[in-house]
Amino acid sequence: MRAYFIESFGSGGLTCREVPEPEPGHGELVVEMLAASLNYRDLLMLRGQYDPRQKLPLVPLSDGVGRVLAVGGGVSDFSVGQRVCPIFAQEWLAGAPSKVRLRSTLGGPRHGTLTEKMCVPASAVVRIPDQISDAEAATLPCAGVTAYNALVTLGQLRGGESVLVQGSGGVSVFALQLAKSMGAQVIATTSSDEKATKLRELGADHVINYRTETRWGTKARSLAGGDGVDHVIEVGGSGTLEESLRAVRPGGNVAIIGILSGGKGEISLLPMLMNQVRLQGVMVGARETFEQLVRCIAANQIHPVVDEVFDFEQVPEAFQKLESGKHFGKIVIRVTR
Amino acid sequence: MRAYFIESFGSGGLTCREVPEPEPGHGELVVEMLAASLNYRDLLMLRGQYDPRQKLPLVPLSDGVGRVLAVGGGVSDFSVGQRVCPIFAQEWLAGAPSKVRLRSTLGGPRHGTLTEKMCVPASAVVRIPDQISDAEAATLPCAGVTAYNALVTLGQLRGGESVLVQGSGGVSVFALQLAKSMGAQVIATTSSDEKATKLRELGADHVINYRTETRWGTKARSLAGGDGVDHVIEVGGSGTLEESLRAVRPGGNVAIIGILSGGKGEISLLPMLMNQVRLQGVMVGARETFEQLVRCIAANQIHPVVDEVFDFEQVPEAFQKLESGKHFGKIVIRVTR
Amino acid sequence: MRAYFIESFGSGGLTCREVPEPEPGHGELVVEMLAASLNYRDLLMLRGQYDPRQKLPLVPLSDGVGRVLAVGGGVSDFSVGQRVCPIFAQEWLAGAPSKVRLRSTLGGPRHGTLTEKMCVPASAVVRIPDQISDAEAATLPCAGVTAYNALVTLGQLRGGESVLVQGSGGVSVFALQLAKSMGAQVIATTSSDEKATKLRELGADHVINYRTETRWGTKARSLAGGDGVDHVIEVGGSGTLEESLRAVRPGGNVAIIGILSGGKGEISLLPMLMNQVRLQGVMVGARETFEQLVRCIAANQIHPVVDEVFDFEQVPEAFQKLESGKHFGKIVIRVTR
Amino acid sequence: MRAYFIESFGSGGLTCREVPEPEPGHGELVVEMLAASLNYRDLLMLRGQYDPRQKLPLVPLSDGVGRVLAVGGGVSDFSVGQRVCPIFAQEWLAGAPSKVRLRSTLGGPRHGTLTEKMCVPASAVVRIPDQISDAEAATLPCAGVTAYNALVTLGQLRGGESVLVQGSGGVSVFALQLAKSMGAQVIATTSSDEKATKLRELGADHVINYRTETRWGTKARSLAGGDGVDHVIEVGGSGTLEESLRAVRPGGNVAIIGILSGGKGEISLLPMLMNQVRLQGVMVGARETFEQLVRCIAANQIHPVVDEVFDFEQVPEAFQKLESGKHFGKIVIRVTR
Repeated sequence: MRAYFIESFGSGGLTCREVPEPEPGHGELVVEMLAASLNYRDLLMLRGQYDPRQKLPLVPLSDGVGRVLAVGGGVSDFSVGQRVCPIFAQEWLAGAPSKVRLRSTLGGPRHGTLTEKMCVPASAVVRIPDQISDAEAATLPCAGVTAYNALVTLGQLRGGESVLVQGSGGVSVFALQLAKSMGAQVIATTSSDEKATKLRELGADHVINYRTETRWGTKARSLAGGDGVDHVIEVGGSGTLEESLRAVRPGGNVAIIGILSGGKGEISLLPMLMNQVRLQGVMVGARETFEQLVRCIAANQIHPVVDEVFDFEQVPEAFQKLESGKHFGKIVIRVTR
Repeated sequence: MRAYFIESFGSGGLTCREVPEPEPGHGELVVEMLAASLNYRDLLMLRGQYDPRQKLPLVPLSDGVGRVLAVGGGVSDFSVGQRVCPIFAQEWLAGAPSKVRLRSTLGGPRHGTLTEKMCVPASAVVRIPDQISDAEAATLPCAGVTAYNALVTLGQLRGGESVLVQGSGGVSVFALQLAKSMGAQVIATTSSDEKATKLRELGADHVINYRTETRWGTKARSLAGGDGVDHVIEVGGSGTLEESLRAVRPGGNVAIIGILSGGKGEISLLPMLMNQVRLQGVMVGARETFEQLVRCIAANQIHPVVDEVFDFEQVPEAFQKLESGKHFGKIVIRVTR
Repeated sequence: MRAYFIESFGSGGLTCREVPEPEPGHGELVVEMLAASLNYRDLLMLRGQYDPRQKLPLVPLSDGVGRVLAVGGGVSDFSVGQRVCPIFAQEWLAGAPSKVRLRSTLGGPRHGTLTEKMCVPASAVVRIPDQISDAEAATLPCAGVTAYNALVTLGQLRGGESVLVQGSGGVSVFALQLAKSMGAQVIATTSSDEKATKLRELGADHVINYRTETRWGTKARSLAGGDGVDHVIEVGGSGTLEESLRAVRPGGNVAIIGILSGGKGEISLLPMLMNQVRLQGVMVGARETFEQLVRCIAANQIHPVVDEVFDFEQVPEAFQKLESGKHFGKIVIRVTR
Repeated sequence: MRAYFIESFGSGGLTCREVPEPEPGHGELVVEMLAASLNYRDLLMLRGQYDPRQKLPLVPLSDGVGRVLAVGGGVSDFSVGQRVCPIFAQEWLAGAPSKVRLRSTLGGPRHGTLTEKMCVPASAVVRIPDQISDAEAATLPCAGVTAYNALVTLGQLRGGESVLVQGSGGVSVFALQLAKSMGAQVIATTSSDEKATKLRELGADHVINYRTETRWGTKARSLAGGDGVDHVIEVGGSGTLEESLRAVRPGGNVAIIGILSGGKGEISLLPMLMNQVRLQGVMVGARETFEQLVRCIAANQIHPVVDEVFDFEQVPEAFQKLESGKHFGKIVIRVTR
């Protein structure tokens, strides 16, 4: 079988090579991968920017879906042929996060999903119903779970509330789809008319072009009605937080799910203090949250937005597409031939 | 102006007569009523079964909508012409219920909505947006708020969860509509094929005929998948609770919103103990919950189901329809000519 | 090594006999038991009243503490000599309960703690700090966790709130101690002056003799001040629930943790509906809750109340004491010689 | 009667002068003030730094306690002679904050408590039981409510959890006292040995001198045990947040209640994202939270720490003491002679 490895940091350090077939240990499954999906984290990992101390070689990628190929001893609730997604933080099954749980993530420090076969604990996968396609399922473990965790598990979204999503990356698009399926009003920001059209097709009630509307936070607040937006899905970090804090209502939530525009910067805490706003860091989520996401996706026939599907041999091109920022939704790798 | 009064308990005790026009006191509004709506509580009140110590005469009914006709001193946030619904518990604005708050309810002990004009504190109304019709708005204060409180405020419904609703009374139909708008899977019970069709049209994923399927709780559990239903909206009381406890999953919620089939009876607490189930009594809700309901109704273009609209002169016929149990959704009285 | 077994239902069916030493499988620990503790459930189990379909022979008891004697493969976070309590529902680590989780309980259907050595998954134990004695630790897994789950995890107890506990059984006494450690006001009921004195010594602010004060619910409501008691720990079931519903404030919680006086009976749901009261079944709790309990016990130097410690040979006498109802707090079995 | 006014910004702008006696309007109370208390906000307000657009003259101060002197029409639940504290945000009675509610605060924009008599809506006060002294009661409305809101209402503190408080300002000391009364473990930071002694006397389990221990966040994490501190009460803002994020466990809470060391600054959002940490701005709280605080204070005989009591004529000296930063706990003004 083949697997990709980061042998050294930098895009040249990614290679695909033959490795021995995995055998399931006690309590484990061997999963034959069908598809995998890219996150921005994977790009940072490849560049050595995510965690420079990460041991190499490392099988990259956190997201994927496969079919159970072999079942280890002591496993009674899975059988060969079932489709499953390995969860991102392999030891975070339910409850609060912890250091140990947050260090058990795929695609670093643990080997990831960009492989033809992988071995995982049977406790660390989620079953995928038939109506979700392979490519769609591959997008769920990080982006889908993060959006559900931010809005529902942590955010306790209610029907009729307003949600502000930024741009058209994976989590943002999931948040848009999930929020609409739960009866919320969605305001999306983007920089292009083409993406604006797609966002509206996905159900966005309002789209703001943040290039022409630089005070987009104030605009979002007025579009939301009342005192402002109930939930902001903040992907930019310090570069966008100021506007997010303009958008959100007193007592509202800002979920920090990414820091694309910079993790460090001049941030004023005053508005969040004065308006009793909550900033909630979101680090993907537990298996329990993933299971609830799957139910929500299935019950509401939500189709995760797949930007493009690349072949297993085209991984470098897939990374380039991610790096270009021109994607809308998720970039997927087809693993099986 | 005219108003109905319960002069003595029993259906013969209901009369309509002329009374003086109300004047707004400090902090008050006079509202010209457009429509009112019946609840089962109104029938019990008329019969003297709800609270035999209720002082008479009493203007009956808890639900209604009207237009602001006059504004008292010290009121700055309302103006003449705005449409508003008086809230059921006039002093329960937000937070937890209390004795004082629960004793401030319209249609007993306080005068209710079956009047051409009524005077209420400006703090005790909710504004109604244009897209909700008068008849629809009149159904919201008890049935709509109860359903939202049960599922959302207290039940913290999440997209993808399952909800079991019983029959086709006001709260049950609202619960069905709200649950669907929030991405839940709905199982409804009914006794007639005709009503089953309507329930499906409103979005019910599964309908169970409880006459032919007497073990409908077990059926609902299997339809819900997993370990059973997440949320039950229990309207029957002791006659149906046993099946509801069969339907609900371990850790699930049963909202007790009515006791149509009897408040007292042989109930086994064992299943709720063994499965860590929650039984949550729901007594309508606070103004805050009403405001959130209105946002949800408006954002999702939910149309409350109005069974029939009666004229102000036809109130006795409206009560008869309610008593017959043949209605589907809410019975409304048109107040303005 | 020796272990007790229920060979047939009834007190005569309990025998102690030699069995082979356990060996730890993959992911397991062998624990040398130091002490075990009785719950009312154990008595029902022995009589065949808890679950008549329970397969026999069965090692009884759910609660106990021991020292790690051997560590199976794949276990990295435990070492020989550490003190641990096996958790009651062996597969309920965190999050919501489920059928599978609730069927993994010790003392039936799984073999329990009344044994000199037992084998458990390493995921299914909780570490016990030094300041908690063996006898005290043995009382925690069911009674302690139930009380913490009822008041804190599910009940979200706040400092200054009022708690009503009934009698002086294990959960009630734990609830009293935990509530006091968290700054609550505690009202306790009892039938004897001697127990009243002990309850006061443990911190009860008020004690009601329910024999002389038959309307103890009304009394508790008035002692609590305001609109009534915030949290009731209901152990009696249908025989006491009526008074509990008199005691609790609108919007308050009644945790159903036992049904000593009968699980089935004439219960009126009307008061819980009218006052928006919550009845919450409590089925012990997850490992996560146990861990939080241990922190609370340790941080506040709470000493679980041990009524009497019996030798391993005196198990029948221990059951008799439990049956007599004359105990105050927990009955413990010393397992090590 | 006399009242203080900020006539112009700056310490020279504060004057005391005679004004007419207030009369209660409909729904209002006139309260004869007994004591008032200073917050850091009052100093900023006086300097013109809190809100330069604040209209002058303004009666300063947000906190105080008084006795009901006269009762306006329509008020039935208060009578002359009762002791009450006006609430900080006069229109925030329960539920979530809103713009309107947050603009109704005493000591700017509304006239404050540094007056011999003041007129307030009867809905905007909280009754104070006898066991709380005048000076103690005066400290509750901002500092006490903020601490309770941060730890309990928003933070859902549980017995056994750990709390980190910074320094010995009003909110920090309240948080220490409340956390101890609720069975938490408290770690406090300070810069002086003398204050360290006082913090220990108040119950602090650990005190860190942040001058000698500059990495006090790391120190606090290790003292808390496990993965770190559960709740941080952050008073410093951008100057201390970095250490607070070192102290807090994954999934933990950081309540932002002040920005003494600067509201704006280089802040890295990365740690809060990676560890799913919550930053919760806290803007005092609702009347409902105040009522719960009072119950907690009374039930646990907590004595708010009063640094020094100044006479009504010594207000300038009181402000100087506050400015010096040498106080420990709250600075109080005795209003009645």
